[in-house]
Amino acid sequence: MVKKVDLNVDSGESFGSYRIGNDEEVFKYVTSANVACGFHAGDPNVMRKTVKLAKKFGVAVGAHPGFPDLMGFGRRNMEVLKDELENYILYQLGALEAFVRAEGLELQHVKAHGALYNMAVTRRDYAEALVNAVKLFNPKLIVVALPNSEMRRVGEEAGVKVAYEFFADRNYRADGSLVPRTHPQALVKDVEEAINRAVKAVDQGVIRTIDGKDLEVVVHTICIHGDSPHAPEIAKALRLKLTEAGINVVPLREIL
Amino acid sequence: MVKKVDLNVDSGESFGSYRIGNDEEVFKYVTSANVACGFHAGDPNVMRKTVKLAKKFGVAVGAHPGFPDLMGFGRRNMEVLKDELENYILYQLGALEAFVRAEGLELQHVKAHGALYNMAVTRRDYAEALVNAVKLFNPKLIVVALPNSEMRRVGEEAGVKVAYEFFADRNYRADGSLVPRTHPQALVKDVEEAINRAVKAVDQGVIRTIDGKDLEVVVHTICIHGDSPHAPEIAKALRLKLTEAGINVVPLREIL
Amino acid sequence: MVKKVDLNVDSGESFGSYRIGNDEEVFKYVTSANVACGFHAGDPNVMRKTVKLAKKFGVAVGAHPGFPDLMGFGRRNMEVLKDELENYILYQLGALEAFVRAEGLELQHVKAHGALYNMAVTRRDYAEALVNAVKLFNPKLIVVALPNSEMRRVGEEAGVKVAYEFFADRNYRADGSLVPRTHPQALVKDVEEAINRAVKAVDQGVIRTIDGKDLEVVVHTICIHGDSPHAPEIAKALRLKLTEAGINVVPLREIL
Amino acid sequence: MVKKVDLNVDSGESFGSYRIGNDEEVFKYVTSANVACGFHAGDPNVMRKTVKLAKKFGVAVGAHPGFPDLMGFGRRNMEVLKDELENYILYQLGALEAFVRAEGLELQHVKAHGALYNMAVTRRDYAEALVNAVKLFNPKLIVVALPNSEMRRVGEEAGVKVAYEFFADRNYRADGSLVPRTHPQALVKDVEEAINRAVKAVDQGVIRTIDGKDLEVVVHTICIHGDSPHAPEIAKALRLKLTEAGINVVPLREIL
Repeated sequence: MVKKVDLNVDSGESFGSYRIGNDEEVFKYVTSANVACGFHAGDPNVMRKTVKLAKKFGVAVGAHPGFPDLMGFGRRNMEVLKDELENYILYQLGALEAFVRAEGLELQHVKAHGALYNMAVTRRDYAEALVNAVKLFNPKLIVVALPNSEMRRVGEEAGVKVAYEFFADRNYRADGSLVPRTHPQALVKDVEEAINRAVKAVDQGVIRTIDGKDLEVVVHTICIHGDSPHAPEIAKALRLKLTEAGINVVPLREIL
Repeated sequence: MVKKVDLNVDSGESFGSYRIGNDEEVFKYVTSANVACGFHAGDPNVMRKTVKLAKKFGVAVGAHPGFPDLMGFGRRNMEVLKDELENYILYQLGALEAFVRAEGLELQHVKAHGALYNMAVTRRDYAEALVNAVKLFNPKLIVVALPNSEMRRVGEEAGVKVAYEFFADRNYRADGSLVPRTHPQALVKDVEEAINRAVKAVDQGVIRTIDGKDLEVVVHTICIHGDSPHAPEIAKALRLKLTEAGINVVPLREIL
Repeated sequence: MVKKVDLNVDSGESFGSYRIGNDEEVFKYVTSANVACGFHAGDPNVMRKTVKLAKKFGVAVGAHPGFPDLMGFGRRNMEVLKDELENYILYQLGALEAFVRAEGLELQHVKAHGALYNMAVTRRDYAEALVNAVKLFNPKLIVVALPNSEMRRVGEEAGVKVAYEFFADRNYRADGSLVPRTHPQALVKDVEEAINRAVKAVDQGVIRTIDGKDLEVVVHTICIHGDSPHAPEIAKALRLKLTEAGINVVPLREIL
Repeated sequence: MVKKVDLNVDSGESFGSYRIGNDEEVFKYVTSANVACGFHAGDPNVMRKTVKLAKKFGVAVGAHPGFPDLMGFGRRNMEVLKDELENYILYQLGALEAFVRAEGLELQHVKAHGALYNMAVTRRDYAEALVNAVKLFNPKLIVVALPNSEMRRVGEEAGVKVAYEFFADRNYRADGSLVPRTHPQALVKDVEEAINRAVKAVDQGVIRTIDGKDLEVVVHTICIHGDSPHAPEIAKALRLKLTEAGINVVPLREIL
């Protein structure tokens, strides 16, 4: 059986006159775009433009909901009630779908942004808010999640499709959780090493954890950090290496 | 043939801890709700709650998009590019539909708010932005508009259903335009007179203009001002008078 | 020596077309106003109007900075870096001072709002951000704080004047901390009892804690909850009782 | 007598994670910085950082108030009541002064941003709002204005110091007004020509208008467009040419 993997990137994170990311370049190499929905980043014009661009490059579109915190780019923890969070996510899903529909496309997936993603790894109430919103809005949407996370567990219990995400540039602990960013070895800083880790994870289903052991992993999608200035080169190099290893790089909807 | 008319009210205009309007009371008497979408008023929690309330009272739900100006409640003129405005409206339509869908309903109509409504009466570019958004999002949505307006003309030229709105508390000029608010006789201040004008407009298809002549009108929907503290009583009295005159008060989708 | 106490109230918490509180009524009875500065509530027009009103009633004006979270009314915990928080507070202090100066007044004090107040009770970094901002902006400003709090400790260590605040409607624990709102006995619900507790706290310097013991307290200012619909009556009754007990109700600057 | 001129640049226009402009580079060559105040651009952290940077480079700090329209970068016309606008400007002046004071500096000037600047050229109510705010806040602040503008006239009538601003890259009409941006010859696109025009305007007090005649001008300050990627080079070249022509480049406070 041919192996398959998706490459996802955060996108549409510009706002008004402000630019973040290089969607035009990185969309040449990725297969799924997580489009910001106007809360932590993005605005209606940016969303329209980003969806058009994804269409042009054949990139599948997903929603990238975040906290209502433009000033903090959605990277700051906020205490929100579960029902409120469900509504915040519904709002963002709907807003993005308007543009997806206007361009004749269909929404493929949802990936939470920044602090919302991180908090929903461990907080069941936040994970439930996300999964409830998906079920109410469109139960066929794929939820992108860390395999060892409440998002994954809650999603699968609820019968929602969950795509397992791999972070090539992060070290993992033995339980499959990420080494926290405060740890000196949180990051795999060498780009080539990161790419090799990703290829091996997809190809052989295994990664070396920070304590030196092998951990079995299932990888449906690999995260490309769109706000890095090197995102296009990294995406290009990773896609090449995956292809050379005989792995098909395709959107999530062709995997799950 | 039995005559029919819709009563519409702006609703869902609270925000966070702030309350405007008395949706719970006024929903007992109206048939269509224009729900704010988070730009000039409303937030995701308010939208969810308002849609639930509309469902409970059998009120049809429409979108009430406005300018991105919470501080000015969408009542201040803004110069926006046509494409930007189209995107602002798409965004708001989508955001509201998420809640409509979550509650198992369908969106019925769109009515622009405040300064956006007023500007789209005379500005063709703004009217086109609104109608384009509707066509891209859901061409079956009914656009609520003043009969003598660019919104109506552009909508009908584009093949979109347009509901003709009547303002019971406003005086009209001979050409069917509203007497501007700066004019001393802009308003019909006597509530009973306003109600009688509305009933006559629906029943006989005629109103007395400010220069004392009769003007033929077609009325599909009558506007109730939801931010007036007397909105529930006015809606109740108007509905009673209409019913006594043998007119059916029904949602727009049963008229157009 | 004649005993003295200040009554403070959160005010200026309206926003745009939205109204919260009844500043006009409650300003008849209080001596210090904590004016919202546009982050959790308030806007430039509301601030101007509130400062004018305070001037009219001889109420001393203080800043009431909060988190940048209008949708949550500043009541939700946010993780903010200490330097960022210092800047958020500086910004709000400056913005309010513009109106205070325009009306020929002087800023008297600072009281943090909602989640910022609560977090700065226990978090030293947040308390330091507040106190640093005060020292940089105007070291003569009085900081209103719970006596058993990091805000008080950090403020006094830094040589800033700290006013000890008493919550008449809250139960206290033996260490002088508030019984958390999640506890069934968090609140003193009977208004008369709350008023008597406040008078006794000022007059005799003692309150009964939740475990039935007497705790010595120093009270410089008593909090009136401005967003309660009964705020004016409560303020009026409390002021009367304090006066009857021979206690002078005066602004903080006449106490510290 | 030695001739003198100021170079001013819009600055501090980043927001949260978003970057606009290259303040660090351009501050090497300009003498006055118009710092955004959080309405059209800027946030408290950006403001603090920008004021620190201005201090480091000896650049005089002014406020750069704009409309409350971050999504439109303050470049869209808004209809605002005069009193509201006065309050918007007061708010922004105060907010910026907090950081100026925290860094031990003094505010030098005010220059309106974008659509607010443009509208206050011709609209007396907007010009009055600006000048009133300055008089209430600090009547010693210098107002930067187009010589042929309501801002200048209102300011001088009110006894406020007005600095006459010159746009090197814009063509002028015979009455000293700018050729509108919609006109094909609105801009002086050749950088060297623009620089020469500026030097001549300062040195000889004359510019060539679009209809080929000479117009006498007084220039106190020349605008550098900080959001242009070439701002640092242009500022550097202009400063060099001015210096070579024997003109002192100094902050406004040394001119007026």
